[in-house]
Amino acid sequence: MPQPLASLRWPACLLLLTFAAVPLHAAEPLASWNDTAAKAAIIKFVETVTDEDSAGYVPPEDRIATFDNDGTLWTEHPMYTQLAFALDRVRTLAPQHPEWKTQQPFKAVLENDLKTLAASGKKGLLELIVATHTGITTEQFEAIVTDWFKTARHPRFKRPYTECTYLPMVELLEYLRANGFKTFIVSGGGIEFMRPMTMEVYGIPPEQVVGTTIETKFEMQDGKPVLMRLPEIDFIDDKAGKPVGINKFIGKRPIAAFGNSAGDRQMLQWTAAGTGPSLKMLVFHDDAEREYAYGPANGLPNSPFGTFPQDLMVEAKQSDWVVISMKNDWKTIFAPEKD
Amino acid sequence: MPQPLASLRWPACLLLLTFAAVPLHAAEPLASWNDTAAKAAIIKFVETVTDEDSAGYVPPEDRIATFDNDGTLWTEHPMYTQLAFALDRVRTLAPQHPEWKTQQPFKAVLENDLKTLAASGKKGLLELIVATHTGITTEQFEAIVTDWFKTARHPRFKRPYTECTYLPMVELLEYLRANGFKTFIVSGGGIEFMRPMTMEVYGIPPEQVVGTTIETKFEMQDGKPVLMRLPEIDFIDDKAGKPVGINKFIGKRPIAAFGNSAGDRQMLQWTAAGTGPSLKMLVFHDDAEREYAYGPANGLPNSPFGTFPQDLMVEAKQSDWVVISMKNDWKTIFAPEKD
Repeated sequence: MPQPLASLRWPACLLLLTFAAVPLHAAEPLASWNDTAAKAAIIKFVETVTDEDSAGYVPPEDRIATFDNDGTLWTEHPMYTQLAFALDRVRTLAPQHPEWKTQQPFKAVLENDLKTLAASGKKGLLELIVATHTGITTEQFEAIVTDWFKTARHPRFKRPYTECTYLPMVELLEYLRANGFKTFIVSGGGIEFMRPMTMEVYGIPPEQVVGTTIETKFEMQDGKPVLMRLPEIDFIDDKAGKPVGINKFIGKRPIAAFGNSAGDRQMLQWTAAGTGPSLKMLVFHDDAEREYAYGPANGLPNSPFGTFPQDLMVEAKQSDWVVISMKNDWKTIFAPEKD
Repeated sequence: MPQPLASLRWPACLLLLTFAAVPLHAAEPLASWNDTAAKAAIIKFVETVTDEDSAGYVPPEDRIATFDNDGTLWTEHPMYTQLAFALDRVRTLAPQHPEWKTQQPFKAVLENDLKTLAASGKKGLLELIVATHTGITTEQFEAIVTDWFKTARHPRFKRPYTECTYLPMVELLEYLRANGFKTFIVSGGGIEFMRPMTMEVYGIPPEQVVGTTIETKFEMQDGKPVLMRLPEIDFIDDKAGKPVGINKFIGKRPIAAFGNSAGDRQMLQWTAAGTGPSLKMLVFHDDAEREYAYGPANGLPNSPFGTFPQDLMVEAKQSDWVVISMKNDWKTIFAPEKD
């Protein structure tokens, strides 16, 4: 007989008793955050919703926290990681596609002509995505993505993209989970591009990843069922699509939401409109030295990746959303390199 | 400061120590199952995947179990519960729609003319769904569904629909969760029709409910963000759509899947195609006395709700899927009535 509930939990229970003997400073939460208003806002919020005697108490099952990914949990410059992946895939697949030598936007990718590539706009981007992300099974795509994460390196930081994650945000994920929160990613990125790495990198399992999806089709190949990835977008999880995605995939309103760009505005509005306390935060990239600086808010340079317009800054101030200054609020940006 | 991980878990830990002192027969798993091959198959499977020394061991994070809802977890006769809801809504809304007195399929509903209603087919059904499920916000719909579940009664069993759930299956859900499984609903039913009741009835939170979705749109109403339910189907989570839904919402292949009709065939095929052990089961409704009997498999009457064709029975036998006989495998169908 499999073990019944009570006996199953014995070893875990004993483990926790051992754990409790570890000095508390070993688990100092939010250690990479400076002692500024941003950190204080997080702690005050968590104190409130976990305190059963507080009017703002929220039972654990309703402690839903949603995180944008690009620019909120990991670096999105000099380009979205998924775009870097798509460009690498074009280079890898080029020998099988001699026509790409003369066909845009592929020609631009192969010639490293980013200006022409950018000029191809959304249409060009979609062509790249179709060529590199579809026409294969979900299992094949997962294997390709997993392999790519192992070998690809960020051009500036010379580290795997999966190490270009913000340590303070990873600590925040852990801190929220330690306080009974269920943490979700709600990203404009491809859901199946993220899922192969989110558990290892963020402690977030595949079923808690919401993102942009493409159509898939169930079919039999040599008597084996597969899901083929079709060249058609199913759902874009960005801007006004984020509350839609949250409602569809999660079915509960978050009480905490974290973003960094105009794509996250509606997610924060949706979170703010709940009853009871909620925490809304935006990461502002104002640290060119340790990471990147872009806006165009506050006079920083504009960026095609992760635009933070001035009116978002205004809305944040008016709405009591907390803007995180990477420069001032974070002691460290990235975790130390692994050996 | 909110409590750090270790101290937070102290009370839960002590609770478990107390729990372990409760006599084991109090938690006898699968108590409403007869000691037949079906129960033995469940127990053997769970023993295998939870035994770290077994070649078939599956780590807890991969113990994904998916359950169809209509006819698998609760009664789907004399009609799908959601259809009963739609018909009730037509009756409720009729005073605001005098035109329905002469307009099909509404006229048929108001005159209780089920034959004409059935003749209106999928087109008629879709018109009913649009009229009763859309044009309102997600919050309004949730409130309407929640209210309806409180008052509506099953026509034969004279109990709330939420009590027309199969006790053996609820025990199975609990047994799997006690053994480290994460349980999901994967139903052709509307995701937002199910979510208001799944936690209370099945112990399954909204974020673990996969189902058919309609399009929603984020918009501002009097400065407050809402999600409007649009008269357009987004995704049909049935038949070949079930593996698609599983991949989209969960992102992992189940190792156990439970259904009862042709709509579940591909979900079971998808589950079976994984590496390692898997459990596939189909509830067969062969108990007219305690519930209903329909096929058309094994010579039972055909049914528009939850068709179990003969070729599904053949595939089950050939594929080592376990067919559950409600009549022979279940001691009890429903839980005793609440006081």
